[in-house]
This record gives sequence, C-alpha cells and structure tokens, in this order.
Amino acid sequence: MKIKTRDRILNTSLELFNTVGEPNVTTLLISDELEISPGNLYYHFKSKAEIVNELFAAYETELMDMLSVPEEADISLDDQALFLHLVFEAIARFRFIYQDLVNILTRYDNLQNRFRRILRAKEKAFIVIAESLQRQGLMQLADHELSALCEQMCLTMTYWVSFESLSHLDNRDETDLGRGVFQVMNLLAPYLTGTARQQVVAMSEAYL
Amino acid sequence: MKIKTRDRILNTSLELFNTVGEPNVTTLLISDELEISPGNLYYHFKSKAEIVNELFAAYETELMDMLSVPEEADISLDDQALFLHLVFEAIARFRFIYQDLVNILTRYDNLQNRFRRILRAKEKAFIVIAESLQRQGLMQLADHELSALCEQMCLTMTYWVSFESLSHLDNRDETDLGRGVFQVMNLLAPYLTGTARQQVVAMSEAYL
Repeated sequence: MKIKTRDRILNTSLELFNTVGEPNVTTLLISDELEISPGNLYYHFKSKAEIVNELFAAYETELMDMLSVPEEADISLDDQALFLHLVFEAIARFRFIYQDLVNILTRYDNLQNRFRRILRAKEKAFIVIAESLQRQGLMQLADHELSALCEQMCLTMTYWVSFESLSHLDNRDETDLGRGVFQVMNLLAPYLTGTARQQVVAMSEAYL
Repeated sequence: MKIKTRDRILNTSLELFNTVGEPNVTTLLISDELEISPGNLYYHFKSKAEIVNELFAAYETELMDMLSVPEEADISLDDQALFLHLVFEAIARFRFIYQDLVNILTRYDNLQNRFRRILRAKEKAFIVIAESLQRQGLMQLADHELSALCEQMCLTMTYWVSFESLSHLDNRDETDLGRGVFQVMNLLAPYLTGTARQQVVAMSEAYL
C-alpha cells in the first residue's frame, strides 16, 4: 500500500510538472491534486527536490539504455528513424526537464553533470549512427562536418519539444513528435548519396 | 533624475535576469542590488511583470528592426554572416527570455503572441535570405526543403544560447556567439554549390 502511494505521487508530479512547468508546482499542489495530506506526502518525499531527483533518475535510466547503440552494427535508415522516434517519446514523457532546462539545472545543481552525461551519450549515439552510414557508403563527411552535424542533431533533439510547444503553449500536452523525427532526419538528407537521400526525404515526409 | 533611476532599475533587472534567471529574481532582490528602497522601486514599476514587459518591448523593437531584410536585394554570404552575428548579439543581450522561454511565456501570457511574431519574423528573414541565394544561383532547393531549412535555422538560433550555456551553467555570462553563427551557417553549407559551399565552410570555421 505504501509503495502504491509513492508511485501515485511520482505519476501525479510528473503530470503536473509537464503541464504547468516544474517551477510552478509546489508539494502542496501535488498533495492537493492527489487528495492526500501534506504530511502523507512528506512521509514519502521530504521535498520537491526529492521528487524531481527520482523522476530524473527514471528518465536517465530509460534514456541511457536507449542510447547505447552497438558500434559495429550496420544501422539502416529505418533503424535510425525508429531510434529517433523512441528517444523523442522518452523526451516527451519527461518534457518538464526540457521545457525549463536551464532553470531546473541551475536550481538542482546535482543534476547538471548527469544531464551533460546524457547529452554526451546522445551525441555519441549520433556519431555511431553517422559512422555506420559512412561505412555503408551512404554518405561521406569530413570529421569536422560529421561532428558539427551530430551536434546539430543533438541540439534539435534537445529543444524540439520546447520549440514545438511554442505553437501551443495553452496546451503543453500536445507535442508533434513526428515533426521532430522529420526535422532530425532532414538534417542528414543533404549529406546522403542519391538513393539514400530520396529514401530519407520520403521517410521524413511520411512523418509529417 | 527620475528617468535615471528608472533606467538603472531596467539595467540591473536585465543583468539579474540574465545571470540568475528571471523566475529566481524578485523585486526585493532588484531593489537590494540597486541599494534603493522597495518603495522607490514601486514608484517606477508596480510589479516585476512591468519590468519584464518593458525589457521585452526593448528587445522586440531592436529585433524587429533587424529582421526586416529587404526582399529585393542580393544578399551575399558575408551579409548573412553579419546579420546572424547581430541577431545573436541581441539574443545574448536579452538571453533571460531564451533561457527560461517556455516558463516566461506561460506566466506572462501577453508576451506569447509577441514572441511568436518575432519567431515568424525570424523565419521570414531566413526565407528572404535563402530566396536571394537561390536567385543568385548559389543553391537550388525545392520549396519544402527551403522551408524545413529555414525552420531549422530558426530553431537553432532560438536555442543556441541555451544549448551553449549547458556547458557552463556556473557562469551564465559567457556565451560563445561565434559558434552559434558557425552552426547556423553550417546548416546552409551542404545545400550550396561548389565555391559558395567552400566559402561558407571557410567563413564558418573562422568563427570557431
């Protein structure tokens, strides 16, 4: 029974953070929303920081798992689109982190290095994918072009949810992930050779 | 004399917003920093919202001015780099808006439409520039490629300062604008024809 309340607190907090923004949520609002007493909430979590930490850890585990792309494999363009889709889904599920990113990382400074580690893992994953595409002869980039491209993919992925939500701030729930996948795939397109380029254009358009 | 205090309040608020984040600044902190009484501050601004509004208006005027790119002109790649540099400078000067973007726009909802108007003007400016490059034969994109590219430039410009500050959150003062210019110019590079492409690569590398 105790475990259940704990999970309900986490789920409700995540929902509130995502919809109204973490800086605007208090523990009182969370307990109100759950119709439990502040004391009951305090029994499980001593502060909002503890809740944020636990949610961040869940996100971290999920994402780090996803980002460990096998280095030797031949990654197809379809694999890559699926990969992007899954990462975008995870980001959208924990979008409160991204919507108030600088703010959250400034206030919870123990999360800074962990977030940077995730960013580096994202960039690494893009590099592994790009290198696989190069090995398969689908594109040919100089090293510095490849790293600029991967940084750009990383930036786009990091801010897509926030950029997208600018068009419907009244409803932070809606996020068009498909357009995010399109936008990242599209970064790759001009570097690909003939057929692969057409394939990516067709695939990324299907996401619109 | 009254005008002077008013300006000092605005300057100090801008500095505080930029360095510690707008959500973390109170009017009390502002008056403390200025060593004036809260009553004196209240005489000039009835709330933090009024200060935010006035700073936003200053940013808006500056940027909208910059973004009205002449539609008929032949825009060189040098012009474009200079344009990017100036816009990045303005964004950096008012970076508090961008660092807590979703948060600020959610709490000050009168700013939402105004911010969207700026975003649209940015995208429009990129389209005017891209169309000029096309007219000069420097690149050839289909309409949908051109609009995806311009949206991507817009996203990168909007979030560059925030992305960049992730690498040194301890000091929100530092921002490497040159790398932002590089990153946006670089988005264009793969679409340009031979010489223009080399020129952009050389130019954007000079920014590193």
